[in-house]
Amino acid sequence: MQVAEFLRRSRQKLVTCLPDDTLQAVAKSMYANNIGAMPVCELGTRMVGIISERDLVRVFARSDWSELQHIRARDAMTSRVVSCRPEDTLQNAQEIMRMNHFRHLPVVQDGKVIGMLSLRDTLALRLHESEEELNLLRDLAVAGRR
Amino acid sequence: MQVAEFLRRSRQKLVTCLPDDTLQAVAKSMYANNIGAMPVCELGTRMVGIISERDLVRVFARSDWSELQHIRARDAMTSRVVSCRPEDTLQNAQEIMRMNHFRHLPVVQDGKVIGMLSLRDTLALRLHESEEELNLLRDLAVAGRR
Repeated sequence: MQVAEFLRRSRQKLVTCLPDDTLQAVAKSMYANNIGAMPVCELGTRMVGIISERDLVRVFARSDWSELQHIRARDAMTSRVVSCRPEDTLQNAQEIMRMNHFRHLPVVQDGKVIGMLSLRDTLALRLHESEEELNLLRDLAVAGRR
Repeated sequence: MQVAEFLRRSRQKLVTCLPDDTLQAVAKSMYANNIGAMPVCELGTRMVGIISERDLVRVFARSDWSELQHIRARDAMTSRVVSCRPEDTLQNAQEIMRMNHFRHLPVVQDGKVIGMLSLRDTLALRLHESEEELNLLRDLAVAGRR
């Protein structure tokens, strides 16, 4: 399956934040939208990084309480340019996540972020598809023996 | 595959925290051990809850900065008793996570926590197994046609 098709099926609403958002604003948005990571974007869709639950935990672990209120999304985010394209297959996208030890991967088209993949969601879908094919092949194998 | 076998293969080191641990201590331990959740245990292994990255984000989103330093693991954790046993299959354990919308599930034996399953890790393993079987069955189907 292509990434574009996966995003369509999952009816994903893309949530982003700004580089100057406070960590508390980021945490509120993650919690309210029930997501584990979001792209940090300037000018609407130009992505400058990704911020995840794990990034918040890392900052939380390292900073004094008095510092926390001054930390912005840009200070806590992972600045990286690795992304996939809507025409990639889910398997390709998963391979990128596996090789880079990412749990989330942004989908970029014409320089704009259009979605986010999570390793868990894509694994669950591929497992479902591969088990459906397994059941079919097992049925065929049984039928062939008759 | 049984849960016990999965824990053996993944060489998991169980990390727990105490109900009175501060949120910062919990965050430090999660980050240092690269884990997303841990059982909160009294008296060594009596589990009273689970605390996850998402729980930290939730507290972070809702609390004032001045309050955060006074919040303990017991205040932020999810108190729940849902767990699986080492003799359960991974498929059963995943079904429990799916139905309850959990991303992590503790493994309990004789009243003691002996491990933690994550939905992502177990999905990845099941996908690997099911793809291996698929390849085998595809090869057999091709051979059968000759």
